Amino acid sequence: MTIDEMKIGDKASTTKTISESDVYLFAGITGDLNPAHIDEESAGRGIFHARVAHGILVTGLISAVLGMKLPGPGTIYLGQEVSFTKPVYFGDTVTATCTVSAMKPDKNIVNLDTVCTNQKGEIVIVGTATVMPPK
Amino acid sequence: MTIDEMKIGDKASTTKTISESDVYLFAGITGDLNPAHIDEESAGRGIFHARVAHGILVTGLISAVLGMKLPGPGTIYLGQEVSFTKPVYFGDTVTATCTVSAMKPDKNIVNLDTVCTNQKGEIVIVGTATVMPPK
Amino acid sequence: MTIDEMKIGDKASTTKTISESDVYLFAGITGDLNPAHIDEESAGRGIFHARVAHGILVTGLISAVLGMKLPGPGTIYLGQEVSFTKPVYFGDTVTATCTVSAMKPDKNIVNLDTVCTNQKGEIVIVGTATVMPPK
Amino acid sequence: MTIDEMKIGDKASTTKTISESDVYLFAGITGDLNPAHIDEESAGRGIFHARVAHGILVTGLISAVLGMKLPGPGTIYLGQEVSFTKPVYFGDTVTATCTVSAMKPDKNIVNLDTVCTNQKGEIVIVGTATVMPPK
Repeated sequence: MTIDEMKIGDKASTTKTISESDVYLFAGITGDLNPAHIDEESAGRGIFHARVAHGILVTGLISAVLGMKLPGPGTIYLGQEVSFTKPVYFGDTVTATCTVSAMKPDKNIVNLDTVCTNQKGEIVIVGTATVMPPK
Repeated sequence: MTIDEMKIGDKASTTKTISESDVYLFAGITGDLNPAHIDEESAGRGIFHARVAHGILVTGLISAVLGMKLPGPGTIYLGQEVSFTKPVYFGDTVTATCTVSAMKPDKNIVNLDTVCTNQKGEIVIVGTATVMPPK
Repeated sequence: MTIDEMKIGDKASTTKTISESDVYLFAGITGDLNPAHIDEESAGRGIFHARVAHGILVTGLISAVLGMKLPGPGTIYLGQEVSFTKPVYFGDTVTATCTVSAMKPDKNIVNLDTVCTNQKGEIVIVGTATVMPPK
Repeated sequence: MTIDEMKIGDKASTTKTISESDVYLFAGITGDLNPAHIDEESAGRGIFHARVAHGILVTGLISAVLGMKLPGPGTIYLGQEVSFTKPVYFGDTVTATCTVSAMKPDKNIVNLDTVCTNQKGEIVIVGTATVMPPK
């Protein structure tokens, strides 16, 4: 989708149940073996009382929406800002939604609000993406 | 490492050669199957001339530094801002470095400059992280 | 096993408990991120009331029997026909059984009935394979 | 997409470069550790002169088109028939294309021709799928 085909308020989303295997693979890929993610004993004694998904893993669902749907294939991802507002537990079903919030047609740059919610409707990530749609 | 053990300018880093399998697994975890990452024919005709890693995957190396080294296990990741300044190709060796840039001891909040460079020393990601060190 | 070492009625099987991680990895490999497989909320409201394995993933157990046991290493897989008769849930234990049903020694071609059953003995896949045994 | 929204000749496709990691993960998931897929020495002496992807793995790209695009989410996969006409090598870029070939609206059943081609345009898989579109 080119910038001419987009307008403020356009939105798209994707949903995934975050599995233990997702978290373990992400831990292996990145080397982020923080006990909060892979040590149930330690995580159980911590602030979240159980292992949680990596915030950056969940941010990947935002990347999926941008790269697959809005604007979709051909998009160049320029930047992302995220706040991690709540933990995502193994088995939580997360929906990432991206909504066009600003457009600079002369520079072919689009901003999108990026929000991830869990199955209870709680916001787990909130932020903003900056992309160049395909020409 | 608690906030009392940290000072501005402290830094830590981690390095990984980004493999095809890293990218393919990340695509599967997140659902970001953008052809730029998994279709050599299409990517070869695109702006980067080959398949590239997901920016958020590489951002995971920053998460690894924060969660494993500085401040390390027990850290709560509050937020991240990144700009993707250059593509990361399969086989590139990326070093993520985090440097303490600001501290708010009364709120137990620390900011870090987060930079990822490739094997040529080129900056591929630049940004800022916000964390709560363990108490 | 060459065609001369096989006779009609010969059979072999393999059994695996299908895990969430099997399904999630298969989704990533193939790009089949249908919510029926990876979104517990959406799948829970659907016809099967929970996430289910990909039919083609389970068909892979048939491929394993053919390639590993009957006829075994060296086999060339010419074709497969399958009907998906019941869903396979995460945690189901599936047994794939292949039984020689026809042989054409002059063309070195063997047909096998291919059936997958779950731990209750219910047929989840039924079909036919066509292979060339090793010479 | 419901059956009322489909017509004969409708088509959709997906493309992926098949990586070594795809094949190795599929081998692990299914247990099909046939040397043709994971033993370069043995495969190098065989009919294809190198390791090749599992035919059923590549068939998964057909499943991805059906479940993600045509008819898309909500589809029930009833059956698949495939012939493996050429080997798929590591690094080959495969496009799976599904084309509606027959429709039985009274039973809500659709048949699709399913073809996979490599980057040279050679057909590697040909077959037919049977699905129930979402209502």
